Amino acid sequence: MIYNFCAGPSMLPMSVLQEAQQALVNWQGTGTSILSISHRSEDFLSIQNAMIADLQELLNIPDNYQVLFLQGGANLQFSAIPMNLSANIKKAAYVNTGFWSQRAVNEAKRYVDVQVIASGVDAAINTNWDIPDDVAYLHCTPNETIDGIEFTKIPKSPVPVVADLSSTIFSRPINVSDYGMIYAGAQKNFGISGLVLVIIRKDLIKEALPGTPTVMQYAYQAKENSLFSTPPTFSWYISSLMLKWLKQQGGLQVMEKLNFAKAQTLYQAIDNSNFYMNKVPVACRSRMNVIFNSQDSKLDTMFVAESKKAGLLYLQGYRAVGGMRASIYNAMPLAGVQTLIDFMQDFERRHGTTKS
Amino acid sequence: MIYNFCAGPSMLPMSVLQEAQQALVNWQGTGTSILSISHRSEDFLSIQNAMIADLQELLNIPDNYQVLFLQGGANLQFSAIPMNLSANIKKAAYVNTGFWSQRAVNEAKRYVDVQVIASGVDAAINTNWDIPDDVAYLHCTPNETIDGIEFTKIPKSPVPVVADLSSTIFSRPINVSDYGMIYAGAQKNFGISGLVLVIIRKDLIKEALPGTPTVMQYAYQAKENSLFSTPPTFSWYISSLMLKWLKQQGGLQVMEKLNFAKAQTLYQAIDNSNFYMNKVPVACRSRMNVIFNSQDSKLDTMFVAESKKAGLLYLQGYRAVGGMRASIYNAMPLAGVQTLIDFMQDFERRHGTTKS
Repeated sequence: MIYNFCAGPSMLPMSVLQEAQQALVNWQGTGTSILSISHRSEDFLSIQNAMIADLQELLNIPDNYQVLFLQGGANLQFSAIPMNLSANIKKAAYVNTGFWSQRAVNEAKRYVDVQVIASGVDAAINTNWDIPDDVAYLHCTPNETIDGIEFTKIPKSPVPVVADLSSTIFSRPINVSDYGMIYAGAQKNFGISGLVLVIIRKDLIKEALPGTPTVMQYAYQAKENSLFSTPPTFSWYISSLMLKWLKQQGGLQVMEKLNFAKAQTLYQAIDNSNFYMNKVPVACRSRMNVIFNSQDSKLDTMFVAESKKAGLLYLQGYRAVGGMRASIYNAMPLAGVQTLIDFMQDFERRHGTTKS
Repeated sequence: MIYNFCAGPSMLPMSVLQEAQQALVNWQGTGTSILSISHRSEDFLSIQNAMIADLQELLNIPDNYQVLFLQGGANLQFSAIPMNLSANIKKAAYVNTGFWSQRAVNEAKRYVDVQVIASGVDAAINTNWDIPDDVAYLHCTPNETIDGIEFTKIPKSPVPVVADLSSTIFSRPINVSDYGMIYAGAQKNFGISGLVLVIIRKDLIKEALPGTPTVMQYAYQAKENSLFSTPPTFSWYISSLMLKWLKQQGGLQVMEKLNFAKAQTLYQAIDNSNFYMNKVPVACRSRMNVIFNSQDSKLDTMFVAESKKAGLLYLQGYRAVGGMRASIYNAMPLAGVQTLIDFMQDFERRHGTTKS
C-alpha cells in the first residue's frame, strides 16, 4: 500500500480515482470522455449545479453568499482580493502567520495600503487581534502549510474577514457567516489543482479597481456563472466527486474527528520520541501539515529517501525549510498515519542509537 | 462509434485516454496517481522537460524564444498581453476578424490605445495589412472558432506579431520566427482546458505595467520556470501525452495533410448539397471549425438533436450564431468526418424533400 503525503496536489480516495477512470473514456454512458464535454452543455451545468448543492449542504452556505469557481490558484487571488475589494477604501489589514500570509501581503501592497496587524505564532495562538475599522477588509491564513501552524478561532471583526482556507476547507465544519470571503485551491482537501473555490458575501461584490482583468472580476464572474471563459472542466469534475465522497463519509463533523485523530496520533509519536521534534507551540500546531525533523539534516535526507522506498511518498519538507512534512488532508486514512509512525519508529531504532 | 465535434474542450485520441486511465491510479509504476504528483518533484519536472523537448521538435522553436505554461485561458492572456508588452509604448494594433478578436480588442482597450487596422473577412482574405510602426505589437487571431474563418499568411511586420493560435496550433507547421508571441489554450488541438501555452521572443519579456498580478508577469513566470504557483498538473500531463501522440502520427506536416483532407471533404459535401450552406468565402474558410446550416432554423434544431442520437456529439453552432458547427481538430479522424457526411446526406434525404 502506497501513502502519499504530498502538500498538494494531494492524495485522493481510490473510489474517486476509479470513478474518474471510467469517466475518462465514457462519462455516464454518453460514450465520450469527461475531458471532452462542452462547458456550455447541460451535461456540464448538471455537474456545476450538483457541486453548488453539495457545497451548500456541506458548509451550510447562507443565501447572501455567492459561490465562484475560478482559475489561477490562490496566488492569483492574492492580487484579485485587493483588486476587487478595495475600490472604495484603499486600505487593508493583514495577519501574517507564515509563508503564504507573507506572499499575500507582498502582493496586496502593490494595490493598497497594507497594515500588518499581527504576526508570527503569537498571532495564531491569540487571535484577539486589534482590527482597525477603517480598512476594506482583514486578510488571514488560518493554516500555514509550510510553517505547520494554524488557528481556528476567527475573531469578531468590524470589517469583512477574508480567509485563505486552501489547506483546511472541508477538513472540519466552519461558520461561513464568520467570513466576508473564503477562498481555497482544490488540490489539498477537495480535488486537484486548477480550480479555486471562492465563497463571498454578495454585498462585497462591487466594481473592481480599474485595470482588473475581466476574468478576475468577481462581479463579472458572478454574472457569468463562473463560465465567462472555458473552465478547467476536469478539475471541476474531480471536485464534484470529492464533495460527494465527503458526504458519503458523513460530512464535515465526521471529517473533523478523523482529521483530529490523525494529527493527534502523529504529534504524540513525535513528542514521545527523543529522535524527532516539532518546534511549533502545541496551541497552534496544524492538523493538516505536520512538520518534523531529526537533529541531523543528513538523517532527514536519509529519512526522506528511505520512506519513499517504503511507499510513503513526498515526506520532504518545503525547500527553504528542510526536514520532513506529512500533509494529512481529508483523503489520508488513519492507517496511512499509523504506517508512517511505524516507519518512523523503525527508522529511529536503526539510526537513533548512532546519535547518543 | 461516438464522434465528438465539440469546439473545446475537444475530442482526444483513445490511446491518450487509455494511458491517462492507467496514470490515474498508478503513474509509471510509482503506485500513486498522476493527480497527486508534487509539482516540485523530479517526476513532474521530467514531464515538463519532455514537453519542452517535444515542443521544440514539433515546432522548431528557435533558441531566442521562451516557452511558458500558464493558467487562466486565452481570456486572461487578452489582459496579460497589453499588460506585459506595452510598458514602453502604450499603443497596439489589432486585426479584428471575428468574435475572439473582438474580445481581445475590448480587453486591450482597458490598458492601451488600440488601433484596429483591419476587420472582417476582407482582413482574412488579404493579410497585407497596413501595419503602423509606432505600436508595441500587432495582435491577430488566425482562426476564429465561432465565425469559422481563418487566414494562414502572416505578413512581414515592423512590430512583433502576437497571435492567438488556440484553435490551429499543432494542426499544421508554423514558422515560429514569424511571431513575436504565440499563445494557445490546450483544449482544442493538444489537450484539455486549464493550460495555456505561451511562446514568446525573449527580448519581448520586459517589465510589465504597474499593477500586473505577479502570476500574470511573463518575466516572473520565465524566471520561475512556470512554477511560481501550483500549475494544473493534469492539464500539463495530458498535453505531454498529446505532444507524443502528434510525434507518433508523423508530426505537423502529416497532421496538416490529414486536417486539410478532413476540411476539404466536409466543405465539398456542403457545397455539393442544395440543403446545407456555408457562407464563408472559400478563400478564408476555417479548416478547424466548419459552420453550416440548412435554410430553416427548425431543421437545424432537429439536425442537432438527431445527430446527437446518432453518436455525433456537440454539433450545435455557437449560442449567438445558431446553425451547426463541426470542430474537426487534430484528434478527429477522417472516419468521423465521413460518418458526419453520411448522416448529413441521410438527414437531407429525410427532410430535404419537404422544402421544395
